[in-house]
This record gives sequence, C-alpha cells and structure tokens, in this order.
Amino acid sequence: MTVKIDDVAKLAGVSKTTVSRVLNKRGSLSEKTIKKVYDAMDELNYRPNVIARQLFKQETKLIGLIFPTVTSPFFGQLISSIQKQLFNQGYRVLIGDSKNDSRIERKYLQELLAHQVDGLIVGSHNSGIDEYNNPNMPIVAIDRRVNDDIPIISSNNYMGGLMATELLIKKGARKIIHTNDPKNLVGPPQNQERKRAYVDSMIEHGLTPIVYSIDYNFSDSKKRQIIEKIFQEHPDVDGMFVSNDVDACRVLNVARHLGYKIPEDFKLVGFDGADLTKITVPDLTTIVQPIDKMAEYAVDMLIKRIKTPSYGHDKMFPVGLWNGETV
Amino acid sequence: MTVKIDDVAKLAGVSKTTVSRVLNKRGSLSEKTIKKVYDAMDELNYRPNVIARQLFKQETKLIGLIFPTVTSPFFGQLISSIQKQLFNQGYRVLIGDSKNDSRIERKYLQELLAHQVDGLIVGSHNSGIDEYNNPNMPIVAIDRRVNDDIPIISSNNYMGGLMATELLIKKGARKIIHTNDPKNLVGPPQNQERKRAYVDSMIEHGLTPIVYSIDYNFSDSKKRQIIEKIFQEHPDVDGMFVSNDVDACRVLNVARHLGYKIPEDFKLVGFDGADLTKITVPDLTTIVQPIDKMAEYAVDMLIKRIKTPSYGHDKMFPVGLWNGETV
Repeated sequence: MTVKIDDVAKLAGVSKTTVSRVLNKRGSLSEKTIKKVYDAMDELNYRPNVIARQLFKQETKLIGLIFPTVTSPFFGQLISSIQKQLFNQGYRVLIGDSKNDSRIERKYLQELLAHQVDGLIVGSHNSGIDEYNNPNMPIVAIDRRVNDDIPIISSNNYMGGLMATELLIKKGARKIIHTNDPKNLVGPPQNQERKRAYVDSMIEHGLTPIVYSIDYNFSDSKKRQIIEKIFQEHPDVDGMFVSNDVDACRVLNVARHLGYKIPEDFKLVGFDGADLTKITVPDLTTIVQPIDKMAEYAVDMLIKRIKTPSYGHDKMFPVGLWNGETV
Repeated sequence: MTVKIDDVAKLAGVSKTTVSRVLNKRGSLSEKTIKKVYDAMDELNYRPNVIARQLFKQETKLIGLIFPTVTSPFFGQLISSIQKQLFNQGYRVLIGDSKNDSRIERKYLQELLAHQVDGLIVGSHNSGIDEYNNPNMPIVAIDRRVNDDIPIISSNNYMGGLMATELLIKKGARKIIHTNDPKNLVGPPQNQERKRAYVDSMIEHGLTPIVYSIDYNFSDSKKRQIIEKIFQEHPDVDGMFVSNDVDACRVLNVARHLGYKIPEDFKLVGFDGADLTKITVPDLTTIVQPIDKMAEYAVDMLIKRIKTPSYGHDKMFPVGLWNGETV
C-alpha cells in the first residue's frame, strides 16, 4: 500500500496543506509542527514523490557531470568530491563518461538536458557541441574552456609546468622531454599551458624543447609503444615531464625495465597528484592539483549560478609539489 | 522558444499521435514515417521532456548505483563499465558513494527511491537498512549479500584466495600473513571468502594463519600504521596476501622502505587486478577479477529483472592471475 500525504496529515494531526508546506519548506511553521510531520513521515515510511514535486517546483535537484572518464585517479577523486559536496547541498548527480568522443558527449548532454538537470559541471569538451550554448542552463567548467560565458575552475597549469621543468633542470637534467595530449584534442585545453611553461623554461635555460603527443584516447599498448619509441629515439634522455600521472607511471615502468637508474640516470615529474596515486605510487614526484578544493569551488559556484545566472568568474588555484623519489 | 510536439508533427507532415508513437516506440510504423519524425526532431532540435513522459510511462530510465567509493581502481572501473553498458541500453545512472557509512547509505537510498529509479545495482551494504527489502524494486548486488531475494554477481573469491596463498607457498614463503576487512564491516561479505581460502590453505600445508584487519574506512595514515605494526611484530614475515590492491601497494611501499628485497626476502599478492592498477603498478602480482564481465552481467540481469521481477540467480566468475614481479 502506498502511503499518501493524507495519511501523514492524519497521523500528525495537521492539515494536508501543512504537510505540503513542511515538504516544500514554505511559509512559517513552528518547530513543533515540523517535528510532528517528520515523525509521522518516519513512522509511515513516507517518501515524497520527487518527480511529481519537481514538475510543480520547476527544479529536479539533479546535476549532470560530463567528464572524459571516471577511472583516472584525477577524475575519480574530482567526481567523488563533487558528488559529496552536492549531496550535502541536497543535490543528486547524474554521471557519464564521454571518453572524449564528441558523439557520446553530445548524446549524453542531450539526455541530461531531457532529464532537466538543474545544472552541469563539465570537464570534457569536444568543440562544435551546440547544446552548451544554452543561456538557460547553469554550467561550470573544470580545466576546459567551453565557451566565453562559462567560468573555468582550474589549477595554475602554467605554474605547475614551470615548477616541474625548473626542478628537473635544477637537479641536473639537460635533455628533458615533455609529453602531452595532442593540441587538437579539446578546445584550447588548459593543460596545454603545462606544455607552454615547459617550452618557455627550456628556452630560457638555453635547452632544446622536445615534445611528444600521447593521445588520451589511445589504448594502453599504443601509449606504451610511444613511450618506448621516445627512449629509442633519445637514449640519452635524462629527464621527463609528463602531463599526467598515469602516463608518468607508464614512463617510470618503461625506464626501469630499460635499466635506467632513477633518479640518478633519469629524472621524472608527473602531473595531478591525486590521493590514490600518492598512495599507490608514492615514489613518483609530481605536481599536485588541489582536487578537493577545485571540486568544492565548482559546486559552490554552480549553486550560485543556479540562483543567479549572471554570477560567475574564472578561478585558478595554486599547485603543490609531491616530493617522491624520481627527481 | 520551446519546441513542441505540434511543431515536430507539422514539419514531419504527420499527426501528433504518430510523433508520440515514434517517441514511445508503440504500434507499428513504417521506417519512412519513423525517419521523417526523427529528421523533423533533429531539424527543430526537439528534446522530448523525459520527466513528463516518465509520469505517463511509469519508468524513469534512471538506475541508481550504491557503492562505497568511486575512487578505488576496482570500483572506478566497475562503475565506469556499468555506466557504459547502461548508456547503451538507454539508461542513465544516478551515482553516489556511501563511504560504507550506513547513515549516508540509507539517506542516499531514500533519495534514489524518491527519484523513482527503475532499479538499483548495489556494491555496498550495511545491515539493517530496511529500504532494500522492497519487493517492487529490482536490485542486483555485486559481491555483497543484501538479502536472500537479491542475486549476487561476484568473482570466485575463494578460488582467488586459494590461488594467492598456494602461489606464495609454492614459491617458498612460509610465514604468510593475510590482511582483510574486519568481519563485521558488511553483511556476510564475499571477500571474507578470500580469508577463508587463505586459512584453509595454510592449515592444509601445516602453516599458521595470521590475519590482520585493515578497516576500509580508516585513514591512509592509520592503514599505514597497521602495516608498519605487522612488520614490527613479525619481522620474519616472508609473504603477504592482501585482500585489495590499494592496501597491497601500501604494503609494497612499506616493505621496500624497510629494506626487504622483493620477491627474494618478501613475496606479495594483491587482489582485484583493475586495469588502472595493472598500468600504474604493473610490478604487483595480483588476483584479477573480471570486472568488465561482472558489470556486463549485472546490467543484463538488472534489465531482465526490471521486465520480469522473478528473474535472477547468483553468478560467480572465475578469477585470473596477473604475473607481476612481487612473487
């Protein structure tokens, strides 16, 4: 038997209107009345029908997340942290990974809009997706420029790139190679700033920048082949700055198997510094993004944009250094 | 301006009823008619209002996932894989991590039910949560017994425990310690089978089983302290079988820092074998659960249970071995 609002009203000894006002947090009610209604709901195990309510209230309390993956340590922690923050604010999360495939991303986005999410947090972007240009949809982006109206929460990627390169140079590396996503993968992605900083720093020190692309969408074995090729083409490489920690782990394993002594012969710095990586591969020296702070800020800004659509500004967080044993 | 079903009907040159039948996949329609309607929807960028439709159709196309975390390599891959399978079947995923906290899990579950999800996939379970005993809600469990009516998809944890222990013994380890969750953490959890296999195997070989608990909910530093204590109390330990790979990485790092030569002085086998772990810590020898196959089977079974509530049976998958370099 389904419990109805009448049953709650009867047990609490109040009118249906009062129950409805408690549910919708409307009007002024005494603490005592609110408690009576909640006690009755508990006793009857009454669950308000969110779907019926949302038609009335024009809000769904659903937030959509669009990220390329949930399986990387960086995105896993980011999504977990966003979800936790939103939960505390009474929102639920609809999630999906786009695999950086614009077809999937677009279909997914259309479904989220059809479910009438109250807002979106986006960390993946393939250009040419018109649905993002919806002025009625509050959106916050993480580390990606979606369009000029959408604020970006990021860490200071340029500073991180400088820190990584300067550290390698300071510790004596001279033939330092950088790997990154190919430039055309996503809009003008923030992590190309890591490459720009590397190039600037190398040139400033009179060293030659060498950059290899490792496409995020490549298979594990393809990525490993590229890394092996780097060592074949540059056996005298003595340092690498790798633009994400998962690829940095691949480099670490290839270098070890080729017999490089680390950090004596070969020094390595990654990027991201997620909690999981610091636990599972604590040896890896890496630039740390403040992932939980970025998540918290993004959620806070999204909720403000839901209330006040004109609200929003870019926010850049400083990065840190995880002192592993690879430099 | 909102595009309405009338606009689609007019552009496609069909009746509103026909558009509605196309949307709801009802009645027999010619390929040509279906194409005309979809072309008109594309041209007008029409998005059917899922919320209005679901009130009519009594389905939401939402599936709720309840897992203790999204940030472990095992759960990250499992959730990603489930989400991909559900997406291909036209379902969206509502997600949240329970942190193995029964209060969060219960609140989260109540919210999912209020959103009227069509079904649940559950990989976390604190006992005493009545909401699971809802005969109208299709549920599939992964690696956890929720109640007797809910089918469990798991890997063969006992076989995995045997393989790990036998491998350590075969390679010469004698003082082998096992770590696992405390027994009271979750219902009768499947991964206690890993412990049972370890104990059986040790006793059969005339060796003494030694088991330490590492509570999943402990902080990283607390977990590390327990591991350091294991080595202090048993400096002559020459093997460990650790019930999850993240803890196994912790053990690996502690053992290396204490100067144990691996695998000569100290051998280690983990459990889970997620793709991410095999990439980032390929050295770690571990028992591999077929995570993607488990996800696929769980989704398939859930969809069958949504259509036929009485459908369902437990399913156990064989495990494999990842030949790292720690044994």
